[in-house]
Amino acid sequence: MDKIKRNERLGAMTRILTDTPNRIHTLGEFCEMFGAAKSTISEDIDLVSASFRQFDLGLIETVAGAAGGVRYRAMPSMDRCRRVLGALAKRLQEPGRMLPGGFLYTSDVTAESVTAQSLGEILAMQYYDKAPDFVLTMETKGIPIALMTARMLDVPLVIARRDSRAYEGSAVKINYIAGGGNERIETMALARRAVNPGQRALIVDDFMKGGGTLQGMVDMMREFQAEVVGVCVMIATATPQEKRVKGANSLLILEGFDRETGCAIVRPAQQYQ
Amino acid sequence: MDKIKRNERLGAMTRILTDTPNRIHTLGEFCEMFGAAKSTISEDIDLVSASFRQFDLGLIETVAGAAGGVRYRAMPSMDRCRRVLGALAKRLQEPGRMLPGGFLYTSDVTAESVTAQSLGEILAMQYYDKAPDFVLTMETKGIPIALMTARMLDVPLVIARRDSRAYEGSAVKINYIAGGGNERIETMALARRAVNPGQRALIVDDFMKGGGTLQGMVDMMREFQAEVVGVCVMIATATPQEKRVKGANSLLILEGFDRETGCAIVRPAQQYQ
Repeated sequence: MDKIKRNERLGAMTRILTDTPNRIHTLGEFCEMFGAAKSTISEDIDLVSASFRQFDLGLIETVAGAAGGVRYRAMPSMDRCRRVLGALAKRLQEPGRMLPGGFLYTSDVTAESVTAQSLGEILAMQYYDKAPDFVLTMETKGIPIALMTARMLDVPLVIARRDSRAYEGSAVKINYIAGGGNERIETMALARRAVNPGQRALIVDDFMKGGGTLQGMVDMMREFQAEVVGVCVMIATATPQEKRVKGANSLLILEGFDRETGCAIVRPAQQYQ
Repeated sequence: MDKIKRNERLGAMTRILTDTPNRIHTLGEFCEMFGAAKSTISEDIDLVSASFRQFDLGLIETVAGAAGGVRYRAMPSMDRCRRVLGALAKRLQEPGRMLPGGFLYTSDVTAESVTAQSLGEILAMQYYDKAPDFVLTMETKGIPIALMTARMLDVPLVIARRDSRAYEGSAVKINYIAGGGNERIETMALARRAVNPGQRALIVDDFMKGGGTLQGMVDMMREFQAEVVGVCVMIATATPQEKRVKGANSLLILEGFDRETGCAIVRPAQQYQ
């Protein structure tokens, strides 16, 4: 194969690294692809890494050791997190999002790939060191954000269902208490083969009021003898202050609604203000 | 700001373009970012574009006209499509995926971000010229693939639900006939505000047997006076040959099950063989 020039390598290498977040590529892979020496590829990596740092595009880092190589990790700066969450809070305060029962209409936002990806990046970077084996969510609205978080961590997504469907095979079913105000018993099901004992779960959902659904997911993980390394949501209500699940990490806080304008009062969580 | 060298620009530019598939960036945006002339940025783009072509990484293309600029589009080669779908078919033929009732266990595959993204790329590239305004899916298993398709097209995802939940606001509900063998009436709901009349919908789901759910989504779009520009699924059963929905585009075909081994017989659709 012809030697590929640096100018031609940099774009291709960037694309390959950023297309597989948190996955280690060996230098040998690039040496072979481009017909270049390891030292040359190392210099390429330094160049891409520096420009990523300069423009807040994430981390390109070299990992030492036998299983070493180079990987891309999303690592938005605090400035970028504030910008993303500030803009999102503003959108959620638009008129007309208040629904009967004190609910907030967020379906357009949660299903948007650009938003899901930005939130996935902010969530993922907080759990690199916890090394989750998978991300767990409960259908339906949390799926896009959970998927993008899983993508950034390079782990599978596991989806708990409201009922165990025929096409899931044998499943574990649990009951949990849902509903912030009007409590009720709900059922959650998860395919038996979806999780192995000893695996580490990161729980991600879109909305927390009472925290019952999230606690249900924590309980479900106990059934599977899996360890929960984190619980996070896009938005949590300020009240009730006491949640069924403990220590959940929320990106946004829904303070309440302005009854006159029908607008929600939403702010980024403390650490992003 | 200091001038940024070409070696430093290429990685950053690649990252920004590929992070927003199908979105046009003006040359001016990059000129400002890097303190470079348009002609220089144009040369950068040519370099990245050439290396993307060489390594089958997608299309970096210049769009002429008033709203012109440069954009990245996923455009996997036929060779790559065959490789992705061949590997997926092989995985789905693993022992133990046959479930009672002639169902195939696919939840691990459909929820995998890498798989969802590869399939999203293959689906999206077939509909660039149809310019859909959004991707529509029905909860739950199709969401990851539909989200990634939407991401590649740079359009929102819209999710139809099995029931209209309180937090969706007013919704349109329809009944549809589901089930290939044991037919039954099911309900599908979609938030009234999710779709506007005249919009163009691309329907994406994970599985088609009788085609009733997909036809339900087509009917739902009629209720919203939206136009359906395509119907696609990850996998369709070979039988029944006659589907309720017409002209659906399937990536894989489930021929049936080997009753002895319990393995599915799955092949890529005709055009990928």
